[in-house]
Amino acid sequence: MEIREITSRQNKLVRRAAALGEDAAARREQGLFLCEGARLCQDAALSGVEVEACFFTRRGEERYGQYLQPVLERAREAYRVEDHVAQLLSSTKNGQGVFCLCRRPEGLGAGLSGRELSGPCLVLEQLQDPGNLGTVLRTAEALGVGQVFLLGECCDPLSPKVLRASMGAVFRLWLGAEPEAGPLCAALRGQGYGLHAAVVDGDAVPVTQLDLARGKQAVFIGNEGNGLRPETVALCGSRVTIPMAGRAESLNASAAATILLWEMTRGRGRRDG
Amino acid sequence: MEIREITSRQNKLVRRAAALGEDAAARREQGLFLCEGARLCQDAALSGVEVEACFFTRRGEERYGQYLQPVLERAREAYRVEDHVAQLLSSTKNGQGVFCLCRRPEGLGAGLSGRELSGPCLVLEQLQDPGNLGTVLRTAEALGVGQVFLLGECCDPLSPKVLRASMGAVFRLWLGAEPEAGPLCAALRGQGYGLHAAVVDGDAVPVTQLDLARGKQAVFIGNEGNGLRPETVALCGSRVTIPMAGRAESLNASAAATILLWEMTRGRGRRDG
Repeated sequence: MEIREITSRQNKLVRRAAALGEDAAARREQGLFLCEGARLCQDAALSGVEVEACFFTRRGEERYGQYLQPVLERAREAYRVEDHVAQLLSSTKNGQGVFCLCRRPEGLGAGLSGRELSGPCLVLEQLQDPGNLGTVLRTAEALGVGQVFLLGECCDPLSPKVLRASMGAVFRLWLGAEPEAGPLCAALRGQGYGLHAAVVDGDAVPVTQLDLARGKQAVFIGNEGNGLRPETVALCGSRVTIPMAGRAESLNASAAATILLWEMTRGRGRRDG
Repeated sequence: MEIREITSRQNKLVRRAAALGEDAAARREQGLFLCEGARLCQDAALSGVEVEACFFTRRGEERYGQYLQPVLERAREAYRVEDHVAQLLSSTKNGQGVFCLCRRPEGLGAGLSGRELSGPCLVLEQLQDPGNLGTVLRTAEALGVGQVFLLGECCDPLSPKVLRASMGAVFRLWLGAEPEAGPLCAALRGQGYGLHAAVVDGDAVPVTQLDLARGKQAVFIGNEGNGLRPETVALCGSRVTIPMAGRAESLNASAAATILLWEMTRGRGRRDG
């Protein structure tokens, strides 16, 4: 593949790619996003994400050649950029100098209609913190919860911070989106799912008393500060909680999500096998 | 209590307190540390930590009076400081303007000798990331693992970042320290503990096949990047792992610790009750 050089910070393609890193609306409108980091770019390319253009510095090329190769094999265009140009694209302090301008995956943010789900399903309502969303997606993938819905106003899963924290899980999970809880709950129930609202409440059912790893179960987790909206809790069939020894507020959002994801898959492999 | 005013950034007590926030060696030598944030200062005071001096801005006093009150009741000295003075003490961007100069808790960092343990015990080896250490301590407290050992060179649990991430758990847990794995393992075993090394290895025992919540079990967790040292793994009686569906490296250190802590206490309440 022909590799072209970009030496100017005024280059239009670089300007456009840099803007995508900072602007969720632009990402949605153009159907494109920016991916930073050798491993993440490789993850995108190997997951079937279309790579419109790959940018790399000379140092990035030297140090991360093995990651870069499968990206370059799939990229439409490739550009070697100078360090001061790469700075425009980077959202980290000591970046690796490897970037991709990618096409938004087609299924990402799709609704449930027409799709038959199986296995455990996670619903995240109004998650606002990119680092938290990325970490939860990473943990979901690691534990084998492959279907995640973003409900209501969540942060954009294609933002640089989410991508980084997710370690590429965004590209490998089935990640849907629904604006309203009502239709989503009805659709999940129609497919035979049990719906469980995660709450901090001693009167709710302890997660250890439900078998969340059996059959079709969907767990709803709410916003970092405020939890699920009361309307959403009411729409779910059961209210589940994590029994705690210490102070209830001591478990952070990410730790709570980890425990629920673990319970959704705990022993599932053994049971199915 | 008499409240004195500090208007100068040259004030010696403020200078000394600020230095403690940045310097682990100074904290150890002087047996003092700096605590920032209304809730955290209250946690320290209510947990029996000796408060040598409390500092607060006028705005901090107005907004966080209810947190400040129990602190002022216990503090030896109290100072109202101007905003530009408070900046010297603060390690956050938008601080609350409430600080305490505290005496290091006596038991903190003690060895095991002479202390009889009961219930689950967590051992953290060479944890370097303050945010990670703080989060793990917070989760340990929430789930009821009240005894934690820092093994080898861990970051200082009284650093501002650890204190903040721990949400005050540092003050409420029993937090010991041991430089060497050998004596610690021998002492724990002498007290009837089963020792489990957490590893990322498909050949180790899946955590779901061990009953970590029964009796005296100690789980060893290693450094974020490198895991436990091989010598430490060898000293433990069993090697435990978290079965994963996705890529093994997809679970971050904090999520892995959360799952292990959860398994150490899962159903413990019900079983004992």
